[in-house]
Amino acid sequence: MKKVTIVVFSGEMDRAMAAFNIAVGAASMGMEATMFFTFWGLNILKRRDARVSPPGFIRKMLAAMMPAGPHKLPLSKLNMFGMGPLMMKKLMKQYRMPDVGEMLALAKQSGVKVIACTTTMELMGIPKAQLIQDVDSCAGVAAYLAEAGESTVNLFI
Amino acid sequence: MKKVTIVVFSGEMDRAMAAFNIAVGAASMGMEATMFFTFWGLNILKRRDARVSPPGFIRKMLAAMMPAGPHKLPLSKLNMFGMGPLMMKKLMKQYRMPDVGEMLALAKQSGVKVIACTTTMELMGIPKAQLIQDVDSCAGVAAYLAEAGESTVNLFI
Amino acid sequence: MKKVTIVVFSGEMDRAMAAFNIAVGAASMGMEATMFFTFWGLNILKRRDARVSPPGFIRKMLAAMMPAGPHKLPLSKLNMFGMGPLMMKKLMKQYRMPDVGEMLALAKQSGVKVIACTTTMELMGIPKAQLIQDVDSCAGVAAYLAEAGESTVNLFI
Repeated sequence: MKKVTIVVFSGEMDRAMAAFNIAVGAASMGMEATMFFTFWGLNILKRRDARVSPPGFIRKMLAAMMPAGPHKLPLSKLNMFGMGPLMMKKLMKQYRMPDVGEMLALAKQSGVKVIACTTTMELMGIPKAQLIQDVDSCAGVAAYLAEAGESTVNLFI
Repeated sequence: MKKVTIVVFSGEMDRAMAAFNIAVGAASMGMEATMFFTFWGLNILKRRDARVSPPGFIRKMLAAMMPAGPHKLPLSKLNMFGMGPLMMKKLMKQYRMPDVGEMLALAKQSGVKVIACTTTMELMGIPKAQLIQDVDSCAGVAAYLAEAGESTVNLFI
Repeated sequence: MKKVTIVVFSGEMDRAMAAFNIAVGAASMGMEATMFFTFWGLNILKRRDARVSPPGFIRKMLAAMMPAGPHKLPLSKLNMFGMGPLMMKKLMKQYRMPDVGEMLALAKQSGVKVIACTTTMELMGIPKAQLIQDVDSCAGVAAYLAEAGESTVNLFI
């Protein structure tokens, strides 16, 4: 069976959409899809309700400045202080396209593996309890490489 | 025969140049190269002469703010309100390097397959007639994955 | 033996860290890892002491605006005129994570191949003498593709 492994490094709506579209598409074609969320990408997996308050001043500042969860992501271009993402969301709704939160649910239903990067979790001070339940496991670069080494399609988004 | 498949997600001059260099290089080495233009990357394939005026207010605004065609692309860094791209273009001309428009023509001559993403076309309201003639076909994520699944080199740019 | 080949196109601290983590991880798992530094990524390989003063006005301006070496890299998000990278560096030090300069040294020790892109060197007017000694070789897109064509994991970062 062909495998697709995607590193989701970016925490932007447009890039997340691309990543989910490819992963869900792969799963629906019978491929095995794995998404490895690292660095800014980890923001997508944060719980909205759980107020992240990590130990340490710098971590607190970073946590305060970063979006929590799939509903607050910026755009990589034309962000315009939040106007861009709102417009894009409205456009997607208008044309009945699922948003990032819905794509994440769809990914889980389709059997896409969702992995959170432990190195980022340690650096940013995010415990597993602060991540959404959809996360299958937390793992490091070795686990990623084991998966990637068996994948035909490897992408860094 | 080895295959190279590149997702061109970014609509910036520097990233487009990298994508075209790799695709044209691959074709010249006898590999089969496919470029799949999606999201901001689709701007590269827009016709300069055809004034895009899609239905819907948000789409109209997005179309007005996005560059049309390979000659108006921004830089991902040091853009400086358009100064950066002008400087880079001048520098490339000075050292006889082809620009994005010329690389696109070269890609076509070398047999690189140029595919436009239908999901982006629908979302942004861009009909095929608004795209340059160099586009070989319009396709979705399934067509991309079929190609990628047979490629040794898969990149997301 | 499985091969990992990474194009390091971005010149940002966060993306460089991701690239080095994957390359060093791959090498430590017995895979062959190659990093191909191009465009903004080439800034990571610039010598700090050697004052780059390339011929031509535009090149001089570009050189003056770009960071030289692994210690001056910006962040791709939350850069905040240099505050973000300082905070991130402090955080990494606090949690005993190696920075980009240390990761580069680690990569070299682990046998990761470090290649500088000749096309970028020509365009920006950077001779080999201006690059750090850790560079194994300077090569173009053909050398990259030969390597990539034999790699299981290909990434563009």
